[in-house]
Amino acid sequence: MALNTRPVAASMNDTNYHGGMIDNLNKGVGALPEPISPAQTQGLGWRLLDEEISLPAAVLYDGVMQQNLQWMQSFVTQYGVKLAPHGKTTMAPKLFARQLAGGAWGITLATAQQTRVAYAHGVRRVIMANQLVGKRNMEIIGQLIADADFEFFCLVDNVDGIDQLGRFYSERGQTLQVLLELGAAGGRTGVRDAAQQDAVLAALARWPEALQLAGVEIYEGVLKQEAEIRAFLQRAVTVLTELAGAGQIKRTPALLSGAGSAWYDVVAEEFAPARIGMPLDVVLRPGCYLTHDVGIYKTAQAQIEIRNPIAHQMRTSLKPALQLWAYVQSIPEADKAIIGLGKRDAAFDAGFPTPAQIYCPGDALPQDVPAHWQITGMMDQHAYLQIAPGDEIKVGDMLAFDISHPCLTFDKWRQVLVLDERYQVVDIVQTYF
Amino acid sequence: MALNTRPVAASMNDTNYHGGMIDNLNKGVGALPEPISPAQTQGLGWRLLDEEISLPAAVLYDGVMQQNLQWMQSFVTQYGVKLAPHGKTTMAPKLFARQLAGGAWGITLATAQQTRVAYAHGVRRVIMANQLVGKRNMEIIGQLIADADFEFFCLVDNVDGIDQLGRFYSERGQTLQVLLELGAAGGRTGVRDAAQQDAVLAALARWPEALQLAGVEIYEGVLKQEAEIRAFLQRAVTVLTELAGAGQIKRTPALLSGAGSAWYDVVAEEFAPARIGMPLDVVLRPGCYLTHDVGIYKTAQAQIEIRNPIAHQMRTSLKPALQLWAYVQSIPEADKAIIGLGKRDAAFDAGFPTPAQIYCPGDALPQDVPAHWQITGMMDQHAYLQIAPGDEIKVGDMLAFDISHPCLTFDKWRQVLVLDERYQVVDIVQTYF
Repeated sequence: MALNTRPVAASMNDTNYHGGMIDNLNKGVGALPEPISPAQTQGLGWRLLDEEISLPAAVLYDGVMQQNLQWMQSFVTQYGVKLAPHGKTTMAPKLFARQLAGGAWGITLATAQQTRVAYAHGVRRVIMANQLVGKRNMEIIGQLIADADFEFFCLVDNVDGIDQLGRFYSERGQTLQVLLELGAAGGRTGVRDAAQQDAVLAALARWPEALQLAGVEIYEGVLKQEAEIRAFLQRAVTVLTELAGAGQIKRTPALLSGAGSAWYDVVAEEFAPARIGMPLDVVLRPGCYLTHDVGIYKTAQAQIEIRNPIAHQMRTSLKPALQLWAYVQSIPEADKAIIGLGKRDAAFDAGFPTPAQIYCPGDALPQDVPAHWQITGMMDQHAYLQIAPGDEIKVGDMLAFDISHPCLTFDKWRQVLVLDERYQVVDIVQTYF
Repeated sequence: MALNTRPVAASMNDTNYHGGMIDNLNKGVGALPEPISPAQTQGLGWRLLDEEISLPAAVLYDGVMQQNLQWMQSFVTQYGVKLAPHGKTTMAPKLFARQLAGGAWGITLATAQQTRVAYAHGVRRVIMANQLVGKRNMEIIGQLIADADFEFFCLVDNVDGIDQLGRFYSERGQTLQVLLELGAAGGRTGVRDAAQQDAVLAALARWPEALQLAGVEIYEGVLKQEAEIRAFLQRAVTVLTELAGAGQIKRTPALLSGAGSAWYDVVAEEFAPARIGMPLDVVLRPGCYLTHDVGIYKTAQAQIEIRNPIAHQMRTSLKPALQLWAYVQSIPEADKAIIGLGKRDAAFDAGFPTPAQIYCPGDALPQDVPAHWQITGMMDQHAYLQIAPGDEIKVGDMLAFDISHPCLTFDKWRQVLVLDERYQVVDIVQTYF
């Protein structure tokens, strides 16, 4: 089993890497007479404000993203905990590489396919924060963990699943590192009580070669109140301490992991001081900090910066780094503009996109939009923008939208353009959903 | 300007076709030691029931899809109208090719990028049922219409947009065919009244070489009541008759087009008998019939089969051809199973996926699920399945889900597996979102 702790490298030149060309059949790009590889995206020279991009397009602001990356790394460093950002948010290997280069300990992922994508792009430590189920999925992971330089963890919370994993990896003579997932009543996955936990531990004991318990994992995001979240986190520390004391943890350091993007501060406060009687890696897994948003995660982050002393004293904050640009397509009524942006382009499950700036081609720079403009509805390929009669807006103007819920925006795009401060494209980030 | 009416061919070997390899970084596929091209997907031998596919996966049932295709073609043939199915639903060139081979007159699309994808795969007649806005988007279409064998139409409904198009294509010495879009008060795009219509016609008159009016287009799906829809359709016939009488229609036959997937029968009834004083092509544009669903379009189709005499007398009906397969991942509470299927995999804006069948690996065939099972919530990568204590279900079982709203399911998948009646993969359909 790989317990390799060498710095994790993320290379685009991994020999397992296949495909991934960017061609002119993609939406939201500029002119591409020939397909290019992800490594050839420097120097394209596309300028957004010169209408050299086919809109709608998704863009990341390079400098903002880099600030967000540093903010979170600084936060976890001050708590002495490790960061394995949830890669399912972006599924963008170039962003994984930035996160790892910025100090992340590993990448968190949700499925076997996502894990394979990360591995193929050089990621060498993955927490798959999910149960691993199904023959083909087990084969995928089996191929990856055959590389002794690749460290992998997945979750277990039930007997049938453990026996299926144990049988599969026993037959292959392989060893899989697993984390006991604790769950909350009414929540998602994870053992609810001592009886379920005992059954899981008994099942693990049947497969001592194939399955090695490395620690404890929770996802606190299914709970809504700080007090119940803290109690849940304290339960995780207690369980891990007992398991460590009983010699059941086979990895040193043991792993203790939690945290989505809304409560990572509370997880850091509860987990960082834990003393379990053996060396411990505390690993946080927020996914949305890199791009942030102006919706659910802006709200959550504001709470964090109020309640957490370290976040409170940091001089900067997370800022939205992901926007969508689209054209005004029709203004059929005096108070209604139709925008060429739809459910095909943006998340809509946690609030509609928010108009931020307007740009009339030929002008010097985009301007902030009036505060009363808002999206009131979306169809597959259109958005309804509420305006007021007489507002300065016309067909052919370009609008920039902030978003809520980056995860479900990223998965609408096969590539996202990275812009500098002058709105010039400096890179293209591919996604693998 | 191309008014070519030769049979439209859809070839995967078009010389403009780039990229599109299928590799093992994709979700929902089987083992792929090497990347394959879309033409190499025959004979893969993957069997869904033998767990040779990494789930979750999206699948199309070949025979059902073929029946749906024939049903709609038979319907439009009986009305003597033409079919340009909305390709934005699937964005799958292999399905476009099936629709064209089955008798479709062209393909409808929503954006310049979608049009380019269709062209690159051999489609040679496209209605872009949208305004064409923005320099780069105009360039894309300009490149395509340079091919005299490619016939293209887009919509106009406002003066600024027309002047932008006129200036752009005048400078290139090209001619663009446009359709006047009529709209309804409170609806989406389209001219609302005679004043807007007159302004549009005056703007078109400024660009007689660059812009040629080919007919009238409406989208009735923004209205909800049959009576107002019929009135809207009758207005379209009246306007087109007046334009034809005034010699303003530059294409022969003139084009009259409407119909989403919910009211195509009413559109056929109103448009088919239209006599406008010149030859006329009536073109319907439903997009969802090929896969159908068990949600919004099942409900709409049931209404059609009640109210429309031709649909009523047809011996078959549309059937759902698209399903998602996923594993039971955890059963943490007696009445709750967690499924490895989330908002990343399925539409959720018009009802959650509906559990249809369950399969325990090793059994002979899938079984229908109990009627009381239902999805009660979805997260990015998980679904909550309500069950009853004691139900026969365990971790590792495979579940098939029907869906509501195929458009927002297709765009979650870069390829969809085509299955025969024995659940064997016979083809892979790629999407280009």
